[in-house]
Amino acid sequence: MRLSNYFLPTLKENPAEAQIVSHRLMLRAGMIRQTSAGIYAWLPLGHRVLKKIEQIVREEMDRAGAIELLMPTLQSADLWRQSGRYDSYGKEMLRIQDRHEREMLYGPTNEEMITDIFRREVKSYRDLPRNLYHIQWKFRDEIRPRFGVMRGREFLMKDAYSFDLDEAAARRSYQKMFISYLRAFSRMGLKAIPMAADTGPIGGDMSHEFIILAETGESEVFCDRTLVDMPAPGDEVDYEADLTPVIEQRTSLYAATDEKHDAAKFEADVPEGNRLSARGIEVGHIFFFGTKYSEPLGALVAGPDGKDVPVQMGSYGIGVSRLLGAIIEASHDEDGIIWPESVAPFKVGLINLKSGDADTDAACAKLYATLTKAGVEVLYDDRDERAGAKFSGMDLIGLPWQLVVGPRGLKNGVVELKERATGNREELSADAAVKKLIG
Amino acid sequence: MRLSNYFLPTLKENPAEAQIVSHRLMLRAGMIRQTSAGIYAWLPLGHRVLKKIEQIVREEMDRAGAIELLMPTLQSADLWRQSGRYDSYGKEMLRIQDRHEREMLYGPTNEEMITDIFRREVKSYRDLPRNLYHIQWKFRDEIRPRFGVMRGREFLMKDAYSFDLDEAAARRSYQKMFISYLRAFSRMGLKAIPMAADTGPIGGDMSHEFIILAETGESEVFCDRTLVDMPAPGDEVDYEADLTPVIEQRTSLYAATDEKHDAAKFEADVPEGNRLSARGIEVGHIFFFGTKYSEPLGALVAGPDGKDVPVQMGSYGIGVSRLLGAIIEASHDEDGIIWPESVAPFKVGLINLKSGDADTDAACAKLYATLTKAGVEVLYDDRDERAGAKFSGMDLIGLPWQLVVGPRGLKNGVVELKERATGNREELSADAAVKKLIG
Repeated sequence: MRLSNYFLPTLKENPAEAQIVSHRLMLRAGMIRQTSAGIYAWLPLGHRVLKKIEQIVREEMDRAGAIELLMPTLQSADLWRQSGRYDSYGKEMLRIQDRHEREMLYGPTNEEMITDIFRREVKSYRDLPRNLYHIQWKFRDEIRPRFGVMRGREFLMKDAYSFDLDEAAARRSYQKMFISYLRAFSRMGLKAIPMAADTGPIGGDMSHEFIILAETGESEVFCDRTLVDMPAPGDEVDYEADLTPVIEQRTSLYAATDEKHDAAKFEADVPEGNRLSARGIEVGHIFFFGTKYSEPLGALVAGPDGKDVPVQMGSYGIGVSRLLGAIIEASHDEDGIIWPESVAPFKVGLINLKSGDADTDAACAKLYATLTKAGVEVLYDDRDERAGAKFSGMDLIGLPWQLVVGPRGLKNGVVELKERATGNREELSADAAVKKLIG
Repeated sequence: MRLSNYFLPTLKENPAEAQIVSHRLMLRAGMIRQTSAGIYAWLPLGHRVLKKIEQIVREEMDRAGAIELLMPTLQSADLWRQSGRYDSYGKEMLRIQDRHEREMLYGPTNEEMITDIFRREVKSYRDLPRNLYHIQWKFRDEIRPRFGVMRGREFLMKDAYSFDLDEAAARRSYQKMFISYLRAFSRMGLKAIPMAADTGPIGGDMSHEFIILAETGESEVFCDRTLVDMPAPGDEVDYEADLTPVIEQRTSLYAATDEKHDAAKFEADVPEGNRLSARGIEVGHIFFFGTKYSEPLGALVAGPDGKDVPVQMGSYGIGVSRLLGAIIEASHDEDGIIWPESVAPFKVGLINLKSGDADTDAACAKLYATLTKAGVEVLYDDRDERAGAKFSGMDLIGLPWQLVVGPRGLKNGVVELKERATGNREELSADAAVKKLIG
């Protein structure tokens, strides 16, 4: 993409309304703009990152055997009356009347709707287990939306729902999601720690939050330091094998959010040097809640003995849009964002130090064409701007690599390649730079 | 995907509520389920087609130089007051009050919001032209939603908005979209005819609807028959060249929807044998409306002479979710859907004629693995069902190819390959079938 044709309105100054660094940087880097309180438009740069995060989540859900579908944003109030949550959900639920005065709502989550879809179609244990997920916009009418996309009102969530015949099978479904979450967050460059958590308005018997550590986190968390650097299961993970050992390796170590924290147990279980108390950001939350929805909604299946039983369910959420904020909180410096390559909006920022100079333009055009053809995503700053503005702009938006091309270097047959994360710079031939970037 | 692990609830009987064939077939093929009046959940099979159509639209928008972003579903009423449409839009607009009693609405379209985003960021003619688009759910509170996804209330639309300094440039932007639409629909296997159309609530001076012919179409249309089979511009199309000749080749021939129809002109311009009057389905609509929104909303840019002028705008919509219905209306037979390969949910349906038979299972497993590894999307019917049910199920869901494997054929070293569109069957070795499908 040539910057002269793009829509990337960066800001030099810190916007007054942004209290945390990710919100400031997303506004300054031209990724989002607020359109109403807690509601954002995703400008092209932000949209690209959103799509990449969504795709990583999708791939890891599919790998774990979940099946994608798509439920609508608006739901009928009737279903929520059947589960009993219509009245209990409170003012965070956005309630709507249509032209025929039917009561609707903008879905804050989808337990009721997916249970309804399931109960209409599935009647036998032979069609179990199933895990159905979607990636769809949700709305929660926060009383004080803040921190940009971290606590917005309209937000993109991946929510999955598992259906099993009995509790043992449901626990296996839960374990698959546990592993899938570790893998997805790790692929985004995040160290996410699963922590025992409260179940809140979803309800249920077992729950883990996936937390990344950041000073600006909203929750206080406590854990064994060993968990922070424990690597996620690799590509060799076999979802059909017994996942219990991998899960227990983590859950046997202390990790809890504020609400679940037990100071005495923390001190008893964790050696002093390993005790970590920190702020954390929730990026995922998984629940096992048995028959909490299947029973009131009548989602029954015939078991092997022919008798109908309510299905055992769990639900599994990832805050897709919130993850952009979380990744930036975890990965930035004073100059701007530092994107992990897996979610970067472009891999390379190509900087033309003298737009209008025929040789430099030609060298840049060739690099741009070669890299693009090889499938490398390049943002080419071809604008007639001074070099300083181009450098600081690229640092701000945080692409992993900057490829700097100017008349002086070209005379010596070199271009400069800078790695954003380390600041390392290297002079090399254009061909060598291409080779390195195509990798 | 193995059908035994999938979620594909097909129906044997025609659902009573469905009046047109696409609605019937989408329900029967397990693609959608209604969750409220005119609101649908997209089950896995339907979701896959939706994503493919979306991707074709995206690629053709990008190719034409448009830039993707994403605006939220909910909008503030204030902006619509500035354009004057808040009161005029009527009951089709779903109006919402949030917990602070702020007036919001579920966007039926985005002229106001994109103009607001644009006016905040762009101040100079040097940043023009721009074409910004998004693919997002919209809501129109139809008084009588019907025909499934063809006239639903919550629907997925691609809407693009162009910004130019003057009318001549704006017409070029309009022409690019015109070409891009011809290409996108053609890639989906549709013959879409651009027709002079009314501008309706969007307003403006120039407008074309893209219509496909189908008996169940809601509009009556009139055109020169020559247009029906005129091929879309190919990959060689150069969006920077003068597009006028390509556009005039079409617009010089008579084509109009009911509201714009001029019977006398039709008879005068079109030779009798070429006069076609038929029913049509609108799948796209493009508008040029100059300063209709930029003026009231104050979207001004400084021209080369330093004077501020309101930008010249157009908007360009494609009904992404509606297209599933339109494609089915155009491509089905008495047995079910016939998907064009470009939008098919899977390319191949692999039918195991004797699940449980060790040799047949092994042959199928090998074919499934080989094709999947080669990037061919396969739906493998591995269920313990009789052959007849498997055949009719595959015909119903309409995958382009059926690969049939049974013990008798295997003894003779052959499998059967059936092309859904023609019904042609061919016996060949498994290797030859693989080669043909990977092709």
